[in-house]
Amino acid sequence: MSTAIAATSEIRFVLDHVAQIGHLAQSERFAAASDDVIEAIIEGAATFATEVWAPLNHAGDTVGAKWTEQGVVLPDRYPEAYRAYVEGGWGTIGVPEEHGGQGLPFTLQTAVLELLGTANPGFALCPTLTVGAIEALVHHGTPEQQAKFLPQLATGAWTGTMNLTEPQAGSDVGALRAQAVPRGDGTWSIKGTKIFISFGDHDLADNIVHLVLARTPDAPAGTRGISLFLVPKFRLDKEGHLGAFNDVKVVSIEHKLGLHASPTCVLSFGDNDDCVGELIGPEHGGMRAMFTMMNNARLNVGLQGVQIGEAATRKAVTYALERVQSARSGATDRKPVRIADHPDVRRMLMRMAAQTQAARALVYYAAAQVDRTTLGDAAARERLEILTPLAKAHATDLGNEIASIGVQVHGGMGYVEETGAAQYFRDARITPIYEGTNGIQAADLVGRKLGMGNGSAFASLIADMRETSQTAALTELIDVCDETGRRLAGADADDRLAASYPFLTMLSVAVCGWLMEAQGRAASDDDLWQAKKATTAFYLNQIVPEALGLAAAARASSAELYAVDPALLLA
Amino acid sequence: MSTAIAATSEIRFVLDHVAQIGHLAQSERFAAASDDVIEAIIEGAATFATEVWAPLNHAGDTVGAKWTEQGVVLPDRYPEAYRAYVEGGWGTIGVPEEHGGQGLPFTLQTAVLELLGTANPGFALCPTLTVGAIEALVHHGTPEQQAKFLPQLATGAWTGTMNLTEPQAGSDVGALRAQAVPRGDGTWSIKGTKIFISFGDHDLADNIVHLVLARTPDAPAGTRGISLFLVPKFRLDKEGHLGAFNDVKVVSIEHKLGLHASPTCVLSFGDNDDCVGELIGPEHGGMRAMFTMMNNARLNVGLQGVQIGEAATRKAVTYALERVQSARSGATDRKPVRIADHPDVRRMLMRMAAQTQAARALVYYAAAQVDRTTLGDAAARERLEILTPLAKAHATDLGNEIASIGVQVHGGMGYVEETGAAQYFRDARITPIYEGTNGIQAADLVGRKLGMGNGSAFASLIADMRETSQTAALTELIDVCDETGRRLAGADADDRLAASYPFLTMLSVAVCGWLMEAQGRAASDDDLWQAKKATTAFYLNQIVPEALGLAAAARASSAELYAVDPALLLA
Repeated sequence: MSTAIAATSEIRFVLDHVAQIGHLAQSERFAAASDDVIEAIIEGAATFATEVWAPLNHAGDTVGAKWTEQGVVLPDRYPEAYRAYVEGGWGTIGVPEEHGGQGLPFTLQTAVLELLGTANPGFALCPTLTVGAIEALVHHGTPEQQAKFLPQLATGAWTGTMNLTEPQAGSDVGALRAQAVPRGDGTWSIKGTKIFISFGDHDLADNIVHLVLARTPDAPAGTRGISLFLVPKFRLDKEGHLGAFNDVKVVSIEHKLGLHASPTCVLSFGDNDDCVGELIGPEHGGMRAMFTMMNNARLNVGLQGVQIGEAATRKAVTYALERVQSARSGATDRKPVRIADHPDVRRMLMRMAAQTQAARALVYYAAAQVDRTTLGDAAARERLEILTPLAKAHATDLGNEIASIGVQVHGGMGYVEETGAAQYFRDARITPIYEGTNGIQAADLVGRKLGMGNGSAFASLIADMRETSQTAALTELIDVCDETGRRLAGADADDRLAASYPFLTMLSVAVCGWLMEAQGRAASDDDLWQAKKATTAFYLNQIVPEALGLAAAARASSAELYAVDPALLLA
Repeated sequence: MSTAIAATSEIRFVLDHVAQIGHLAQSERFAAASDDVIEAIIEGAATFATEVWAPLNHAGDTVGAKWTEQGVVLPDRYPEAYRAYVEGGWGTIGVPEEHGGQGLPFTLQTAVLELLGTANPGFALCPTLTVGAIEALVHHGTPEQQAKFLPQLATGAWTGTMNLTEPQAGSDVGALRAQAVPRGDGTWSIKGTKIFISFGDHDLADNIVHLVLARTPDAPAGTRGISLFLVPKFRLDKEGHLGAFNDVKVVSIEHKLGLHASPTCVLSFGDNDDCVGELIGPEHGGMRAMFTMMNNARLNVGLQGVQIGEAATRKAVTYALERVQSARSGATDRKPVRIADHPDVRRMLMRMAAQTQAARALVYYAAAQVDRTTLGDAAARERLEILTPLAKAHATDLGNEIASIGVQVHGGMGYVEETGAAQYFRDARITPIYEGTNGIQAADLVGRKLGMGNGSAFASLIADMRETSQTAALTELIDVCDETGRRLAGADADDRLAASYPFLTMLSVAVCGWLMEAQGRAASDDDLWQAKKATTAFYLNQIVPEALGLAAAARASSAELYAVDPALLLA
């Protein structure tokens, strides 16, 4: 089946050949992930996303979420569409069975989330955030907390949020000021203002479970003094039923460039000193708990690059196959052809498809490491750590590139909002920013991940890539990454950071090239294979060599950046 | 003087060292362009743009141009601000004295237009289009037509438009259907619908001079049967006073991603069979006349890349110097610093500044060739021809890249519309599309320009660059461009076009690198020189090597692009 929005054959191929979901299914933990189940879930999710969520995408953008005195309201039919998601059990796929889920691989949940986000990028952010809240509770909640909240979060009957940012504390989380004071009964009184809270309020679910970073009294300064609290919008009574409003007010929502279906809220906690939270994990252990939540959230933001890349590619390919304009250069009949047949348009389509597949391979490969880590594989855990900044940063960079090419393929119509290509361009632009800017990801790569296990995480990735590479340019790129990475691991902080972004891009392209090449070898002779052979060749022959052009920047010292006071750039 | 929006020192430096405006002033034609006059115009235009046009930019975006029954209405205070532009004589700079202008170099007019567009990108499109109409009349109008229309167009009291596109005729201009039938008195009856007409209607000026491509009866098919007509919104009586409405109706305006201050109109000509036009140039000579108009318009669209690049850079640098967040990595005092001091933010700022300067150098260098051509320099004409697609395509690509980095520097705030960074990102996105898509520019480069004068235009550009290059990477890039260009000149149409875009980018970066390196040598010891040294080094050491990464794509054959039916990419 190939539905309007869904790359189901390609997703299935990547699950099999990149994520190797078949291996996962051999474990007891993931035994339920049989071929049939995978097939049914992918096809079912594609149908659901296409029929129920995709038709609401345009209204999500043009009407958008609205702030009212009573709270945030999504456009018409969003609440029903969300209820259908809950009832379909689409939220439960990756949640462990003991917490009310289906206990299937994170990788399969990734595939479902891709399909939802391709159908409706803003709407899909809601389940994406709930996944993060579930992760935090699964790993750091008490059994009591898990029992109280996880079953409702698993289905999506309640949704989750992440509350880190404050006006003075963006990338510098340690600067936050929100406070938590003990109430004497084991709970905490929460007070503070948080900004940029996606789906911080809405009319889709009965309750919202806010996970909030705050400081306890006399906590040390910086990140070491931060604790994580669970703060529901409505409190629960002893039977777990919804009780009183918990003094969490939505003060306003942002007027954003895109993702209008996703309300970005300013939340005020405890305006009336009546906001109660529960500590998650140990006091002052907030950063660790938050990182559990953020790490997988980072993969899911990388996945947004895939979602938008796929949506933009499908739209552009469809348009280019329909729009007839100009004869092919050199054609003697002077007959106008579909624009997809003009070489430079073909180049754009091929680039969009190849980059989307590359982003998907990178994110799904990383997602598979989450599942292997669950199975206790220590090497997978290390691999996941080094892949996370690549998947978040590079896949979102690609989402932006692809969406921009998508506008270009549509020509003048691409600039007209009704066409829809511009929405993806606007929606994509936040993804390199939130969940840790891509600059922060690059800093994480060179600052923490390169040196992990005395460099073993990096060395083993390089070794695996080198072992199978059969393309000269790819091997050269792997070599340059190897040399650059070793040098950066020992460089001073400024030099390391100055080179971090070009290095992250080179290493990401190397990993994508490696995964694309491997897919190209997984022989078959159907339509997908025709396409895969072409996109793989394009990737290896054009995109991998491009990345080699970044070697000079990755070798440059920071001195070049500090050669002039930036104020003088305004001369 | 350094005003809020203006890079006046940098503009002056580029006029002197890249455009070599001093040489132009040695000619009789441009003798008026003395140092003092140049200085007065740059400073005056910067002050005017900053004080009068910049404050209206936000309303231009948020309120935008509106369609009403009575015609298109710009936001409050736009009509006054436009009148102030007319009264200040800012439109007359580049118009020959015999037509009511100041007869100063096109290059100087370019500088003024840059300042206006940095202040208000959408608004500045209005004079940009008028410049195109003036060019067409200066070169192809009869003395009578020139006398009737040019003085009013020169001041901007009347504005000009370009009417090419129809729904079925976008990049394929030859497919247009608008008709012109002789009325027996030497005038023509015009009928047809045109779309995407920038400033096709507005309330800024008393009249609008539409230049319209149409077919005369029994004209040959395709571009050879097209003629150019001048169609005023209001007819002129014998004394040249404004007369009857000329049956040119604005049917609607587009709801666009950006440039909201610029109304993009659907115009209907001759709904009541009462639309009268005058033929400009010979019958069936429309394409030639249109190209006169388009060529300089293409430089002015390239200039929009510079305008938006400068605006975005100033905004980002200013923000990064103010926003304090996180201690510098490795700093022992753990004191938060302005984000401009973090290496990766510094890298982004440096890249924005270097790319903006590169785009400016490219466009101003091309503009100088317009003036040299006016002085009868045949080599300059050839140089202009080969530079035009580079200036249009590469400078607009850079405008987009810079505006996107500008959003990134602002972090989460960049995604909030009120910040203003997102406006530049939206505004910039049309520039690679209109006035001939950048793909069309690349086709023009490899299809017409490479072979011009038996390859002499290309060969002499390569020779000039090679002669002065002192940077290994730049010399290598020039060599690769040389080899690729020669090969493409003899390649078949598909292979040539398949490689056209990467080749255009490589050649553009080579030209920018050459011009940046030359600026780096023009010694001086003030603030500007400090900045220029740093941006030049960054450009040569990081951006030039990046372009070398495109060599593989520029060498690839079209077979790779046609290896799969694009419909299979939707698997």
